[in-house]
Amino acid sequence: MNPSLLTPAEARARFRQGLRVPTAGWSAGWTQANLIAVPREIAYDVLLFAQRNPKPCPVLDVTEPGEVSCGIFAGDLRTDLPGYRVYEHGSLVAETSDVTGAWRDDLVAFLIGCSFTFEAALLEAQVPVRHVEAGCNVPMFRTNRPCRPAGSMGGPLVVSMRPVPAGLVATAVRVTSRYPAVHGAPVHVGDPSALGIASLEIPDFGDPVEVRPDEVPVFWACGVTPQAAVMASKPAFAIGHAPGSMAITDARDSEFVIP
Amino acid sequence: MNPSLLTPAEARARFRQGLRVPTAGWSAGWTQANLIAVPREIAYDVLLFAQRNPKPCPVLDVTEPGEVSCGIFAGDLRTDLPGYRVYEHGSLVAETSDVTGAWRDDLVAFLIGCSFTFEAALLEAQVPVRHVEAGCNVPMFRTNRPCRPAGSMGGPLVVSMRPVPAGLVATAVRVTSRYPAVHGAPVHVGDPSALGIASLEIPDFGDPVEVRPDEVPVFWACGVTPQAAVMASKPAFAIGHAPGSMAITDARDSEFVIP
Repeated sequence: MNPSLLTPAEARARFRQGLRVPTAGWSAGWTQANLIAVPREIAYDVLLFAQRNPKPCPVLDVTEPGEVSCGIFAGDLRTDLPGYRVYEHGSLVAETSDVTGAWRDDLVAFLIGCSFTFEAALLEAQVPVRHVEAGCNVPMFRTNRPCRPAGSMGGPLVVSMRPVPAGLVATAVRVTSRYPAVHGAPVHVGDPSALGIASLEIPDFGDPVEVRPDEVPVFWACGVTPQAAVMASKPAFAIGHAPGSMAITDARDSEFVIP
Repeated sequence: MNPSLLTPAEARARFRQGLRVPTAGWSAGWTQANLIAVPREIAYDVLLFAQRNPKPCPVLDVTEPGEVSCGIFAGDLRTDLPGYRVYEHGSLVAETSDVTGAWRDDLVAFLIGCSFTFEAALLEAQVPVRHVEAGCNVPMFRTNRPCRPAGSMGGPLVVSMRPVPAGLVATAVRVTSRYPAVHGAPVHVGDPSALGIASLEIPDFGDPVEVRPDEVPVFWACGVTPQAAVMASKPAFAIGHAPGSMAITDARDSEFVIP
Protein backbone atom coordinates (compact mmCIF):
# COMPACT_ATOMS: atom_id res chain seq x y z
CA MET A 1 0.00 0.00 0.00
CA ASN A 2 1.43 3.34 -1.09
CA PRO A 3 -0.09 5.94 1.27
CA SER A 4 0.43 8.73 -1.26
CA LEU A 5 -2.05 7.06 -3.62
CA LEU A 6 -4.90 6.64 -1.13
CA THR A 7 -7.96 8.83 -1.49
CA PRO A 8 -8.84 10.95 1.53
CA ALA A 9 -11.73 8.57 2.35
CA GLU A 10 -9.40 5.56 2.16
CA ALA A 11 -6.76 7.22 4.35
CA ARG A 12 -9.36 8.31 6.89
CA ALA A 13 -10.76 4.76 7.04
CA ARG A 14 -7.31 3.44 8.01
CA PHE A 15 -6.91 6.04 10.74
CA ARG A 16 -10.44 5.32 11.95
CA GLN A 17 -9.38 1.69 12.29
CA GLY A 18 -6.56 2.83 14.57
CA LEU A 19 -3.46 3.34 12.40
CA ARG A 20 -1.19 5.93 14.01
CA VAL A 21 1.38 7.52 11.68
CA PRO A 22 2.44 11.03 10.69
CA THR A 23 0.43 11.98 7.61
CA ALA A 24 3.18 13.76 5.63
CA GLY A 25 3.20 12.27 2.15
CA TRP A 26 -0.25 10.67 2.47
CA SER A 27 -2.95 11.19 -0.18
CA ALA A 28 -0.78 13.24 -2.52
CA GLY A 29 -2.59 16.27 -3.91
CA TRP A 30 -5.20 16.33 -1.15
CA THR A 31 -5.02 19.08 1.44
CA GLN A 32 -4.12 18.25 5.01
CA ALA A 33 -5.29 20.39 7.90
CA ASN A 34 -4.55 21.12 11.54
CA LEU A 35 -7.45 20.72 13.97
CA ILE A 36 -8.39 22.84 16.95
CA ALA A 37 -11.82 22.35 18.52
CA VAL A 38 -13.05 24.59 21.33
CA PRO A 39 -16.33 25.31 23.10
CA ARG A 40 -18.62 27.71 21.23
CA GLU A 41 -18.23 30.32 23.97
CA ILE A 42 -14.58 30.90 23.07
CA ALA A 43 -14.92 30.26 19.33
CA TYR A 44 -14.87 33.99 18.60
CA ASP A 45 -11.55 34.35 20.41
CA VAL A 46 -10.07 31.48 18.41
CA LEU A 47 -11.41 32.76 15.09
CA LEU A 48 -10.17 36.28 15.84
CA PHE A 49 -6.80 34.87 16.96
CA ALA A 50 -6.61 33.14 13.57
CA GLN A 51 -7.62 36.31 11.73
CA ARG A 52 -4.93 38.27 13.57
CA ASN A 53 -2.27 35.63 12.97
CA PRO A 54 -2.94 34.46 9.42
CA LYS A 55 0.55 33.10 8.78
CA PRO A 56 0.35 30.36 11.44
CA CYS A 57 -3.47 30.11 11.46
CA PRO A 58 -4.94 30.18 7.94
CA VAL A 59 -8.54 29.02 8.46
CA LEU A 60 -9.69 26.59 5.78
CA ASP A 61 -13.08 25.69 7.27
CA VAL A 62 -15.13 25.88 10.48
CA THR A 63 -17.79 23.44 11.67
CA GLU A 64 -21.18 24.28 13.06
CA PRO A 65 -21.28 23.72 16.84
CA GLY A 66 -21.42 20.00 17.59
CA GLU A 67 -20.92 18.95 13.95
CA VAL A 68 -18.08 16.53 13.19
CA SER A 69 -17.74 17.21 9.49
CA CYS A 70 -17.77 20.28 7.27
CA GLY A 71 -17.57 21.36 3.65
CA ILE A 72 -13.98 20.29 3.03
CA PHE A 73 -14.03 17.26 5.35
CA ALA A 74 -16.64 14.56 4.68
CA GLY A 75 -15.30 12.23 7.39
CA ASP A 76 -15.76 12.20 11.16
CA LEU A 77 -13.45 14.63 12.95
CA ARG A 78 -13.65 12.51 16.14
CA THR A 79 -12.12 9.36 14.65
CA ASP A 80 -10.58 10.02 11.23
CA LEU A 81 -7.26 11.57 12.26
CA PRO A 82 -4.40 9.30 13.32
CA GLY A 83 -4.09 11.02 16.69
CA TYR A 84 -5.54 13.67 18.95
CA ARG A 85 -4.58 15.68 21.99
CA VAL A 86 -7.16 16.59 24.60
CA TYR A 87 -6.57 19.63 26.82
CA GLU A 88 -8.21 20.71 30.05
CA HIS A 89 -7.29 24.14 31.40
CA GLY A 90 -4.25 24.16 29.12
CA SER A 91 -2.90 20.80 30.27
CA LEU A 92 -2.59 17.83 27.96
CA VAL A 93 -4.79 15.21 29.61
CA ALA A 94 -4.92 12.59 26.86
CA GLU A 95 -3.29 11.62 23.58
CA THR A 96 -5.46 9.15 21.76
CA SER A 97 -6.58 7.95 18.33
CA ASP A 98 -10.30 8.44 18.98
CA VAL A 99 -12.00 11.34 20.78
CA THR A 100 -15.59 10.20 20.33
CA GLY A 101 -16.01 9.97 24.10
CA ALA A 102 -14.48 13.38 24.75
CA TRP A 103 -16.31 15.31 21.99
CA ARG A 104 -18.95 17.75 23.20
CA ASP A 105 -22.07 19.15 21.56
CA ASP A 106 -20.84 22.71 21.97
CA LEU A 107 -17.50 22.19 20.22
CA VAL A 108 -16.62 24.26 17.18
CA ALA A 109 -13.80 22.75 15.11
CA PHE A 110 -11.39 24.86 13.08
CA LEU A 111 -9.45 23.32 10.21
CA ILE A 112 -6.22 25.25 9.73
CA GLY A 113 -3.93 25.05 6.70
CA CYS A 114 -0.82 22.87 6.92
CA SER A 115 2.57 23.25 5.30
CA PHE A 116 2.43 19.63 4.11
CA THR A 117 0.36 21.13 1.29
CA PHE A 118 3.36 22.78 -0.33
CA GLU A 119 5.80 19.91 0.16
CA ALA A 120 4.84 18.30 -3.15
CA ALA A 121 5.58 21.64 -4.83
CA LEU A 122 8.95 21.80 -3.05
CA LEU A 123 9.82 18.29 -4.23
CA GLU A 124 8.66 19.17 -7.75
CA ALA A 125 11.09 22.11 -7.64
CA GLN A 126 13.92 19.74 -6.61
CA VAL A 127 13.99 21.04 -3.03
CA PRO A 128 14.51 18.02 -0.76
CA VAL A 129 12.15 17.55 2.20
CA ARG A 130 14.19 15.79 4.86
CA HIS A 131 11.44 14.49 7.14
CA VAL A 132 9.69 12.88 4.16
CA GLU A 133 12.99 11.29 3.07
CA ALA A 134 13.55 10.10 6.63
CA GLY A 135 10.00 8.84 7.07
CA CYS A 136 9.55 10.76 10.31
CA ASN A 137 7.48 13.70 11.54
CA VAL A 138 8.47 17.29 10.70
CA PRO A 139 10.27 19.05 13.60
CA MET A 140 8.28 21.88 15.16
CA PHE A 141 9.43 24.49 17.68
CA ARG A 142 7.89 27.05 19.97
CA THR A 143 9.50 30.43 19.26
CA ASN A 144 10.08 33.54 21.36
CA ARG A 145 7.74 35.47 19.06
CA PRO A 146 4.35 36.17 20.61
CA CYS A 147 1.29 35.96 18.40
CA ARG A 148 -1.09 38.91 18.44
CA PRO A 149 -3.60 37.95 21.15
CA ALA A 150 -7.39 37.92 20.77
CA GLY A 151 -9.61 37.97 23.82
CA SER A 152 -8.67 35.03 26.00
CA MET A 153 -6.33 33.51 23.41
CA GLY A 154 -2.62 34.26 23.15
CA GLY A 155 0.64 32.38 22.91
CA PRO A 156 3.87 31.92 20.99
CA LEU A 157 4.34 31.40 17.27
CA VAL A 158 5.14 27.76 16.52
CA VAL A 159 7.22 26.98 13.43
CA SER A 160 8.09 23.92 11.41
CA MET A 161 11.69 23.53 10.19
CA ARG A 162 13.03 22.09 6.96
CA PRO A 163 16.76 22.07 6.17
CA VAL A 164 17.31 23.48 2.67
CA PRO A 165 20.56 23.44 0.65
CA ALA A 166 21.91 27.01 0.56
CA GLY A 167 21.56 27.21 -3.20
CA LEU A 168 17.87 26.27 -3.04
CA VAL A 169 16.69 28.60 -0.28
CA ALA A 170 15.50 31.19 -2.78
CA THR A 171 13.61 28.48 -4.66
CA ALA A 172 11.99 27.28 -1.43
CA VAL A 173 10.89 30.83 -0.63
CA ARG A 174 9.54 31.41 -4.12
CA VAL A 175 7.64 28.11 -4.26
CA THR A 176 6.02 28.38 -0.84
CA SER A 177 5.11 32.06 -1.34
CA ARG A 178 2.56 30.81 -3.82
CA TYR A 179 0.67 29.03 -1.02
CA PRO A 180 -0.42 31.85 1.34
CA ALA A 181 -3.44 29.84 2.55
CA VAL A 182 -1.17 27.15 3.95
CA HIS A 183 1.44 29.29 5.76
CA GLY A 184 3.09 30.69 2.61
CA ALA A 185 6.64 31.98 2.64
CA PRO A 186 9.03 31.19 5.52
CA VAL A 187 8.97 33.43 8.58
CA HIS A 188 12.70 32.99 9.17
CA VAL A 189 15.77 31.68 7.35
CA GLY A 190 18.90 30.70 9.27
CA ASP A 191 19.99 31.11 12.88
CA PRO A 192 17.49 29.28 15.13
CA SER A 193 18.59 31.29 18.18
CA ALA A 194 17.02 34.40 16.65
CA LEU A 195 13.69 32.67 17.20
CA GLY A 196 14.67 31.62 20.72
CA ILE A 197 15.22 28.02 19.63
CA ALA A 198 18.02 26.58 21.76
CA SER A 199 18.63 23.38 19.81
CA LEU A 200 17.35 22.00 16.53
CA GLU A 201 17.92 18.55 17.96
CA ILE A 202 15.17 18.95 20.54
CA PRO A 203 11.93 19.95 18.79
CA ASP A 204 8.92 20.79 20.94
CA PHE A 205 6.74 18.69 18.63
CA GLY A 206 7.60 16.04 16.02
CA ASP A 207 10.99 14.50 15.35
CA PRO A 208 14.49 15.96 14.95
CA VAL A 209 16.01 15.79 11.44
CA GLU A 210 19.58 16.07 10.20
CA VAL A 211 20.81 19.49 9.04
CA ARG A 212 23.79 18.94 6.73
CA PRO A 213 26.77 21.30 6.48
CA ASP A 214 25.64 22.83 3.20
CA GLU A 215 22.08 23.35 4.44
CA VAL A 216 20.27 26.26 6.07
CA PRO A 217 17.40 25.72 8.51
CA VAL A 218 14.26 27.34 7.09
CA PHE A 219 11.27 28.02 9.32
CA TRP A 220 7.63 28.22 8.33
CA ALA A 221 4.69 29.28 10.53
CA CYS A 222 2.95 26.15 11.83
CA GLY A 223 -0.67 25.23 12.47
CA VAL A 224 0.23 23.81 15.88
CA THR A 225 0.27 27.47 16.99
CA PRO A 226 -3.39 27.35 18.15
CA GLN A 227 -2.51 24.40 20.40
CA ALA A 228 0.38 26.37 21.90
CA ALA A 229 -2.15 29.15 22.50
CA VAL A 230 -4.43 26.66 24.23
CA MET A 231 -1.54 25.58 26.45
CA ALA A 232 -0.72 29.22 27.25
CA SER A 233 -4.27 30.53 27.58
CA LYS A 234 -5.79 27.58 29.42
CA PRO A 235 -9.39 27.43 28.18
CA ALA A 236 -11.46 24.90 30.11
CA PHE A 237 -11.47 22.42 27.22
CA ALA A 238 -9.98 21.92 23.77
CA ILE A 239 -9.11 19.12 21.36
CA GLY A 240 -6.33 19.32 18.79
CA HIS A 241 -4.72 16.91 16.36
CA ALA A 242 -1.56 15.15 17.48
CA PRO A 243 1.16 17.24 15.83
CA GLY A 244 1.95 15.76 12.40
CA SER A 245 -1.22 13.65 12.44
CA MET A 246 -3.40 15.82 10.29
CA ALA A 247 -6.96 15.81 9.02
CA ILE A 248 -6.83 14.68 5.39
CA THR A 249 -9.50 16.77 3.70
CA ASP A 250 -11.48 16.50 0.48
CA ALA A 251 -9.96 19.76 -0.81
CA ARG A 252 -7.24 19.74 -3.44
CA ASP A 253 -3.86 21.35 -2.80
CA SER A 254 -4.26 23.07 -6.15
CA GLU A 255 -7.12 25.15 -4.71
CA PHE A 256 -4.67 26.97 -2.48
CA VAL A 257 -1.97 27.94 -4.94
CA ILE A 258 -1.78 31.42 -6.40
CA PRO A 259 -1.87 31.23 -10.20
CA MET B 1 -6.66 70.90 -2.18
CA ASN B 2 -6.01 67.70 -4.06
CA PRO B 3 -7.69 64.94 -2.04
CA SER B 4 -5.36 62.30 -3.45
CA LEU B 5 -2.40 63.98 -1.74
CA LEU B 6 -3.89 64.18 1.75
CA THR B 7 -2.52 61.90 4.45
CA PRO B 8 -5.06 59.60 6.11
CA ALA B 9 -5.00 61.82 9.22
CA GLU B 10 -5.65 64.93 7.11
CA ALA B 11 -8.48 63.28 5.21
CA ARG B 12 -10.06 61.97 8.40
CA ALA B 13 -9.89 65.44 9.96
CA ARG B 14 -11.92 66.84 7.05
CA PHE B 15 -14.55 64.14 7.39
CA ARG B 16 -14.61 64.67 11.16
CA GLN B 17 -15.41 68.31 10.45
CA GLY B 18 -18.42 67.19 8.42
CA LEU B 19 -17.30 66.90 4.77
CA ARG B 20 -19.46 64.32 2.99
CA VAL B 21 -17.99 62.94 -0.25
CA PRO B 22 -17.26 59.53 -1.75
CA THR B 23 -13.68 58.66 -0.86
CA ALA B 24 -12.60 57.07 -4.17
CA GLY B 25 -9.36 58.72 -5.18
CA TRP B 26 -8.64 60.18 -1.74
CA SER B 27 -5.25 59.67 -0.02
CA ALA B 28 -3.65 57.81 -2.91
CA GLY B 29 -1.66 54.79 -1.79
CA TRP B 30 -3.46 54.50 1.54
CA THR B 31 -5.89 51.65 2.04
CA GLN B 32 -9.60 52.34 2.34
CA ALA B 33 -11.91 50.03 4.24
CA ASN B 34 -15.57 49.16 4.63
CA LEU B 35 -16.98 49.33 8.15
CA ILE B 36 -19.44 47.03 9.87
CA ALA B 37 -19.87 47.32 13.63
CA VAL B 38 -22.07 44.91 15.56
CA PRO B 39 -22.71 43.98 19.19
CA ARG B 40 -20.15 41.59 20.66
CA GLU B 41 -22.76 38.86 21.02
CA ILE B 42 -23.03 38.46 17.24
CA ALA B 43 -19.40 39.28 16.43
CA TYR B 44 -18.59 35.59 15.98
CA ASP B 45 -21.33 35.25 13.37
CA VAL B 46 -20.00 38.27 11.47
CA LEU B 47 -16.39 37.11 11.65
CA LEU B 48 -17.36 33.60 10.53
CA PHE B 49 -19.53 35.08 7.76
CA ALA B 50 -16.44 36.97 6.60
CA GLN B 51 -14.27 33.87 6.83
CA ARG B 52 -16.78 31.93 4.75
CA ASN B 53 -17.13 34.69 2.17
CA PRO B 54 -13.59 36.00 1.77
CA LYS B 55 -14.13 37.54 -1.68
CA PRO B 56 -16.69 40.13 -0.52
CA CYS B 57 -15.53 40.22 3.12
CA PRO B 58 -11.73 40.27 3.41
CA VAL B 59 -11.12 41.28 7.04
CA LEU B 60 -8.30 43.79 7.43
CA ASP B 61 -8.67 44.48 11.16
CA VAL B 62 -11.08 44.06 14.09
CA THR B 63 -11.47 46.34 17.11
CA GLU B 64 -11.69 45.29 20.72
CA PRO B 65 -15.28 45.68 22.01
CA GLY B 66 -16.05 49.37 22.57
CA GLU B 67 -12.81 50.60 21.02
CA VAL B 68 -13.06 53.15 18.21
CA SER B 69 -9.62 52.65 16.69
CA CYS B 70 -7.41 49.69 15.89
CA GLY B 71 -4.01 48.80 14.52
CA ILE B 72 -4.57 50.03 10.98
CA PHE B 73 -6.86 52.94 11.89
CA ALA B 74 -5.50 55.57 14.29
CA GLY B 75 -8.56 57.83 13.98
CA ASP B 76 -12.00 57.66 15.60
CA LEU B 77 -14.33 55.24 13.84
CA ARG B 78 -17.36 57.18 15.13
CA THR B 79 -16.53 60.46 13.38
CA ASP B 80 -13.75 60.03 10.81
CA LEU B 81 -15.70 58.55 7.91
CA PRO B 82 -17.69 60.87 5.63
CA GLY B 83 -20.93 59.03 6.31
CA TYR B 84 -22.53 56.20 8.26
CA ARG B 85 -25.65 54.09 8.18
CA VAL B 86 -27.31 52.96 11.41
CA TYR B 87 -29.49 49.83 11.36
CA GLU B 88 -32.00 48.54 13.88
CA HIS B 89 -33.45 45.08 13.25
CA GLY B 90 -32.24 45.30 9.66
CA SER B 91 -33.87 48.63 8.90
CA LEU B 92 -31.88 51.72 8.04
CA VAL B 93 -32.83 54.18 10.79
CA ALA B 94 -30.28 56.92 10.18
CA GLU B 95 -27.70 58.11 7.67
CA THR B 96 -25.37 60.58 9.29
CA SER B 97 -21.81 61.91 9.35
CA ASP B 98 -21.24 61.24 13.05
CA VAL B 99 -22.31 58.19 15.07
CA THR B 100 -20.81 59.21 18.40
CA GLY B 101 -24.25 59.25 19.99
CA ALA B 102 -25.24 55.87 18.56
CA TRP B 103 -22.00 54.01 19.32
CA ARG B 104 -22.24 51.42 22.09
CA ASP B 105 -19.66 49.98 24.47
CA ASP B 106 -20.32 46.44 23.25
CA LEU B 107 -19.71 47.18 19.56
CA VAL B 108 -17.03 45.30 17.67
CA ALA B 109 -16.00 47.01 14.43
CA PHE B 110 -14.75 45.10 11.41
CA LEU B 111 -12.69 46.83 8.75
CA ILE B 112 -13.18 45.05 5.44
CA GLY B 113 -11.03 45.50 2.35
CA CYS B 114 -12.28 47.78 -0.44
CA SER B 115 -11.79 47.61 -4.18
CA PHE B 116 -10.75 51.27 -4.24
CA THR B 117 -7.36 49.84 -3.22
CA PHE B 118 -6.72 48.37 -6.65
CA GLU B 119 -8.03 51.31 -8.67
CA ALA B 120 -4.65 53.04 -8.70
CA ALA B 121 -3.17 49.82 -10.10
CA LEU B 122 -5.92 49.70 -12.76
CA LEU B 123 -5.18 53.30 -13.76
CA GLU B 124 -1.45 52.55 -13.80
CA ALA B 125 -2.21 49.70 -16.22
CA GLN B 126 -4.17 52.12 -18.47
CA VAL B 127 -7.53 50.65 -17.48
CA PRO B 128 -9.94 53.59 -17.11
CA VAL B 129 -12.04 53.83 -13.94
CA ARG B 130 -15.26 55.51 -14.95
CA HIS B 131 -16.60 56.60 -11.56
CA VAL B 132 -13.29 58.27 -10.74
CA GLU B 133 -13.33 60.06 -14.12
CA ALA B 134 -16.93 61.10 -13.47
CA GLY B 135 -16.28 62.20 -9.91
CA CYS B 136 -19.13 60.10 -8.57
CA ASN B 137 -19.56 57.03 -6.38
CA VAL B 138 -18.96 53.53 -7.76
CA PRO B 139 -22.22 51.71 -8.67
CA MET B 140 -22.98 48.72 -6.42
CA PHE B 141 -25.63 46.03 -6.89
CA ARG B 142 -27.25 43.31 -4.84
CA THR B 143 -26.98 40.03 -6.78
CA ASN B 144 -29.03 36.83 -6.82
CA ARG B 145 -26.04 34.92 -5.42
CA PRO B 146 -26.44 34.02 -1.76
CA CYS B 147 -23.39 34.24 0.47
CA ARG B 148 -22.57 31.20 2.57
CA PRO B 149 -24.39 31.92 5.85
CA ALA B 150 -22.85 31.82 9.33
CA GLY B 151 -25.03 31.54 12.40
CA SER B 152 -27.50 34.41 12.33
CA MET B 153 -25.83 36.13 9.36
CA GLY B 154 -26.73 35.55 5.74
CA GLY B 155 -27.57 37.56 2.66
CA PRO B 156 -26.79 38.23 -0.98
CA LEU B 157 -23.43 38.96 -2.55
CA VAL B 158 -23.08 42.66 -3.35
CA VAL B 159 -20.84 43.67 -6.25
CA SER B 160 -19.29 46.86 -7.55
CA MET B 161 -19.27 47.43 -11.31
CA ARG B 162 -16.68 49.08 -13.51
CA PRO B 163 -17.10 49.29 -17.30
CA VAL B 164 -13.89 48.09 -18.97
CA PRO B 165 -13.00 48.34 -22.68
CA ALA B 166 -13.22 44.84 -24.16
CA GLY B 167 -9.54 44.80 -25.03
CA LEU B 168 -8.57 45.61 -21.44
CA VAL B 169 -10.75 43.10 -19.58
CA ALA B 170 -7.91 40.58 -19.34
CA THR B 171 -5.62 43.29 -18.01
CA ALA B 172 -8.22 44.29 -15.41
CA VAL B 173 -8.52 40.65 -14.30
CA ARG B 174 -4.77 40.21 -14.13
CA VAL B 175 -4.14 43.43 -12.21
CA THR B 176 -6.87 42.92 -9.63
CA SER B 177 -6.00 39.23 -9.12
CA ARG B 178 -2.89 40.48 -7.40
CA TYR B 179 -5.00 42.05 -4.64
CA PRO B 180 -6.82 39.10 -3.01
CA ALA B 181 -7.07 40.91 0.34
CA VAL B 182 -9.20 43.64 -1.24
CA HIS B 183 -11.66 41.51 -3.27
CA GLY B 184 -9.14 40.35 -5.88
CA ALA B 185 -10.25 39.19 -9.31
CA PRO B 186 -13.75 39.92 -10.64
CA VAL B 187 -16.57 37.54 -9.76
CA HIS B 188 -18.30 38.09 -13.10
CA VAL B 189 -17.60 39.62 -16.50
CA GLY B 190 -20.42 40.63 -18.81
CA ASP B 191 -24.18 40.07 -18.73
CA PRO B 192 -25.60 41.70 -15.59
CA SER B 193 -28.77 39.59 -15.76
CA ALA B 194 -26.71 36.49 -14.93
CA LEU B 195 -26.23 38.07 -11.50
CA GLY B 196 -29.91 38.98 -11.28
CA ILE B 197 -29.18 42.66 -11.95
CA ALA B 198 -32.14 44.10 -13.87
CA SER B 199 -30.60 47.41 -14.90
CA LEU B 200 -27.12 48.88 -14.61
CA GLU B 201 -28.77 52.28 -14.54
CA ILE B 202 -30.35 51.64 -11.14
CA PRO B 203 -27.64 50.62 -8.68
CA ASP B 204 -28.69 49.56 -5.20
CA PHE B 205 -25.90 51.68 -3.73
CA GLY B 206 -23.78 54.48 -5.22
CA ASP B 207 -24.25 56.18 -8.58
CA PRO B 208 -24.91 54.88 -12.09
CA VAL B 209 -22.08 55.29 -14.61
CA GLU B 210 -22.00 55.21 -18.42
CA VAL B 211 -21.17 51.89 -20.10
CA ARG B 212 -19.93 52.66 -23.61
CA PRO B 213 -20.55 50.42 -26.63
CA ASP B 214 -17.02 49.00 -26.68
CA GLU B 215 -17.07 48.31 -22.94
CA VAL B 216 -17.96 45.26 -20.86
CA PRO B 217 -19.40 45.57 -17.35
CA VAL B 218 -17.02 43.90 -14.91
CA PHE B 219 -18.18 42.99 -11.41
CA TRP B 220 -16.09 42.69 -8.28
CA ALA B 221 -17.21 41.42 -4.86
CA CYS B 222 -18.01 44.40 -2.65
CA GLY B 223 -17.51 45.15 1.05
CA VAL B 224 -21.08 46.44 1.32
CA THR B 225 -22.03 42.74 1.42
CA PRO B 226 -21.99 42.66 5.27
CA GLN B 227 -24.50 45.53 5.29
CA ALA B 228 -26.75 43.61 2.90
CA ALA B 229 -26.44 40.69 5.35
CA VAL B 230 -27.45 43.03 8.18
CA MET B 231 -30.50 44.09 6.19
CA ALA B 232 -31.40 40.45 5.46
CA SER B 233 -30.55 39.00 8.88
CA LYS B 234 -31.93 41.81 11.03
CA PRO B 235 -29.62 41.87 14.06
CA ALA B 236 -30.88 44.23 16.77
CA PHE B 237 -28.23 46.84 16.00
CA ALA B 238 -25.44 47.57 13.54
CA ILE B 239 -23.52 50.50 12.12
CA GLY B 240 -21.94 50.54 8.66
CA HIS B 241 -20.22 53.12 6.50
CA ALA B 242 -22.32 54.95 3.95
CA PRO B 243 -21.54 53.05 0.73
CA GLY B 244 -18.59 54.73 -0.98
CA SER B 245 -17.70 56.70 2.14
CA MET B 246 -14.89 54.55 3.42
CA ALA B 247 -12.59 54.49 6.41
CA ILE B 248 -9.22 55.78 5.21
CA THR B 249 -6.72 53.68 7.11
CA ASP B 250 -3.05 54.02 7.99
CA ALA B 251 -2.18 50.88 6.00
CA ARG B 252 -0.54 51.13 2.59
CA ASP B 253 -2.15 49.63 -0.50
CA SER B 254 1.22 48.05 -1.24
CA GLU B 255 0.80 45.81 1.82
CA PHE B 256 -2.03 43.99 0.09
CA VAL B 257 -0.48 43.23 -3.30
CA ILE B 258 0.96 39.84 -4.10
CA PRO B 259 4.58 40.18 -5.18
